[in-house]
Amino acid sequence: MALITPRTPAGTMELLPRRQIAFQRMLDTIRRNYERFGFIPLETPVFEVADVLLSKSGGETEKQVYFVQSTGAIEQGHKPDLAMRFDLTVPTARYVAQHERDLAFPFRRYQMQRVYRGERAQKGRYREFYQCDIDVIGKDSLPVAYDAEMPAVIYSVFTELDVGPFQINFNNRKILLGMFEALGVIDPGIRTLVLRQVDKLDKLSRDEVLALLTGEGIALSAGQAASVLDMIGFSGPAADTLAHLDRLGLDNALFREGLDELAQVVAALKAFGVPETHWRVNLAIARGLDYYTGTVYETFLTDHPSLGSVCSGGRYENLAGLYTKSKLPGVGISIGLTRLFYALEQAGIVQDGDSSVQALVTQFDPALLADYLAMGAELRAAGVNTEIYLSPDKPAKQFKYADKAGIRFAVIMGGDEKARGEVTVKDMIAGGQAGVRREALATTLAWIIDQKRLPAEGEAV
Amino acid sequence: MALITPRTPAGTMELLPRRQIAFQRMLDTIRRNYERFGFIPLETPVFEVADVLLSKSGGETEKQVYFVQSTGAIEQGHKPDLAMRFDLTVPTARYVAQHERDLAFPFRRYQMQRVYRGERAQKGRYREFYQCDIDVIGKDSLPVAYDAEMPAVIYSVFTELDVGPFQINFNNRKILLGMFEALGVIDPGIRTLVLRQVDKLDKLSRDEVLALLTGEGIALSAGQAASVLDMIGFSGPAADTLAHLDRLGLDNALFREGLDELAQVVAALKAFGVPETHWRVNLAIARGLDYYTGTVYETFLTDHPSLGSVCSGGRYENLAGLYTKSKLPGVGISIGLTRLFYALEQAGIVQDGDSSVQALVTQFDPALLADYLAMGAELRAAGVNTEIYLSPDKPAKQFKYADKAGIRFAVIMGGDEKARGEVTVKDMIAGGQAGVRREALATTLAWIIDQKRLPAEGEAV
Repeated sequence: MALITPRTPAGTMELLPRRQIAFQRMLDTIRRNYERFGFIPLETPVFEVADVLLSKSGGETEKQVYFVQSTGAIEQGHKPDLAMRFDLTVPTARYVAQHERDLAFPFRRYQMQRVYRGERAQKGRYREFYQCDIDVIGKDSLPVAYDAEMPAVIYSVFTELDVGPFQINFNNRKILLGMFEALGVIDPGIRTLVLRQVDKLDKLSRDEVLALLTGEGIALSAGQAASVLDMIGFSGPAADTLAHLDRLGLDNALFREGLDELAQVVAALKAFGVPETHWRVNLAIARGLDYYTGTVYETFLTDHPSLGSVCSGGRYENLAGLYTKSKLPGVGISIGLTRLFYALEQAGIVQDGDSSVQALVTQFDPALLADYLAMGAELRAAGVNTEIYLSPDKPAKQFKYADKAGIRFAVIMGGDEKARGEVTVKDMIAGGQAGVRREALATTLAWIIDQKRLPAEGEAV
Repeated sequence: MALITPRTPAGTMELLPRRQIAFQRMLDTIRRNYERFGFIPLETPVFEVADVLLSKSGGETEKQVYFVQSTGAIEQGHKPDLAMRFDLTVPTARYVAQHERDLAFPFRRYQMQRVYRGERAQKGRYREFYQCDIDVIGKDSLPVAYDAEMPAVIYSVFTELDVGPFQINFNNRKILLGMFEALGVIDPGIRTLVLRQVDKLDKLSRDEVLALLTGEGIALSAGQAASVLDMIGFSGPAADTLAHLDRLGLDNALFREGLDELAQVVAALKAFGVPETHWRVNLAIARGLDYYTGTVYETFLTDHPSLGSVCSGGRYENLAGLYTKSKLPGVGISIGLTRLFYALEQAGIVQDGDSSVQALVTQFDPALLADYLAMGAELRAAGVNTEIYLSPDKPAKQFKYADKAGIRFAVIMGGDEKARGEVTVKDMIAGGQAGVRREALATTLAWIIDQKRLPAEGEAV
């Protein structure tokens, strides 16, 4: 029979073991931080009833949806009635509306699952990718203090992820909307184009951006264009930015509301323990102009600006209006981990991790198998992830295995050592080995793993 | 606009938060044990290229497969080229064949992901469900000692899952195949029927089973039927069972090989530290007659026999013959966690868990918000999962929230207490409260959570 070429579908990420371990550690870090901040886990099915999932979206989004049907249904010519989630927000909205009476509000959930989009296949674009989301959802209302909690979580997560310096940028969309109202810029399409051009202020001169704003396709008046740049082209420390906005004295209720909220978030961040080195108010951030209604966030890796935002989100007025009459305002953020992991790999920041296996008990003498099994049981009871090499291969082959698998510590005991009540621990990465009393193996190896090194000659463990 | 009724597709499990937390804890327990035994994580995409996934299966299995296609492809009338995995074995076989040169053998992976089957919707049957698998895959060969490792993992997992007494049953299919060969029972269909009837020995008398074996549809001779029952109808301690099989003195190579392997597994189990109270040799276990070739496992919850096997698996000759010419023998087990969880819920064994949030810092006085935020940051730094209640609601509403959310410890500080340098910790489950020095809050609450109780009057913490 001809062999079938084993391969994965385009647009999926599948990792070799030591990369998978590195990925798993990032997932664990994110989850640990989300739980640390008092978020609880939620998982939803990978597919939803199609008309529940797609009630809102259409056009471009709908084209990217994957539909699911069983063989039987295809044969009978049915239209697919299941569709795979394309984000975690819609399933969460559906969940909260469905279980509203059973939930405690504010409902604080984290959700770390894969989502699916029929993207055109290209490098760094994924059809299946992880999103790691948190949201706080209130019933009827949700104080703006929750908006200040999000940067605290982002700060904690990215500090522990240890992927280099980063900066959280945030803004309040009411400031932008109020400004557009006050200037008489009404068309949403024009508003979007304006914000896109303002975003170029870090690359172009003020005059160049002014020319774009008054040019073809946007056609602001010279006065409007100058006002836009005066207002949101400002960049500086948070206190200065707030003072600048206040000085504008714009007579617009939405603008004043946004400024007030922004000031509250800035004030709370200090108490949340987020150092100002790691955040800034960025008046040019809008994150599209439909879904978010207040605070919006973007996060950038300082050394890798080309990645764009690696953690984004914002405040929304009403989560689940399609499914319930209850008003459910919320605020949340999302990390697209698959894409981030790919980018970090490309930048050489993530590497193969050491194996999650911490010790390999080798089989030096098949007659001592029962001893090796007992050593393995002791090590596991002491909390050491331990593999026992159960094939009677030559020692060189066993060490080669530990090396390839990324297992750092090998445990060796031959007949002579057994007679002396001793075991050897070999460090496969740093090199070197140390003799350990057989009866102290578990406690000593736990110490070695904790210290990431062998004990020095005569050192007490 | 009319509201859409929020609902999940038939055959999916979606849990309320405190049930989800209980489920998550089971997943974590299984994973921790798999890692403890030196298995490394693997994740594969939820869908595979259809002709790679379905190269082998057909008929009944194929009807249960879910196919995936994007809107665009449906409109163009394409046949679906993606299919969702129906187990974790085929994706693992594909993975090992695809990455063979990059893997270290024996390749020991755990995989805990959801799989999909278009089952007929009924209670306790799922179209989306978790499988939690481990496998050890060798290159060319894999010693039978690895077969003895599996019950050690099962024992460790189910002991920690704490779902009541259980027993691991195992057998070796070579014994059954050898017996059938020796008795001249050749037809695989008849062999399957015979084993199904022998399985009834715990409910029917020997004579009744004999009648079934010689009756319509099977039609063994009286001599064959009696031999079958004499051979595999035996039940007793492992040593007696091995002696019994040896006494049969069956002149069949396959039978002798199976007996030898079974004896090796039995001998190694003691060294692996699995007490004989928790396992037995069960000669009637076969697990179908196609895939497994040697040792086979089933695990039963003693108090809930009707659940059937909750953890099954076995040894196979060659994992990935469809994708590679390399010979890759392996042994593995699988826990169908979604189905198990459902059954344990029905039996009243799993309940709502305490929240993963360990402490709620309440907001007694909005003027002290900065203090509450600082307390939250200290608690998190001490490893306590902490939520800060950020809405200025009445205390009664905040306590009601903690209660509904299952958060055990509430932290309270008003102006007077602040002046005294004190904080109150309230136990929402056991009742009672204790005063704690403000500066010792984090260490004291970590102690309280560890001890699951408040300190007694004057007790040193």
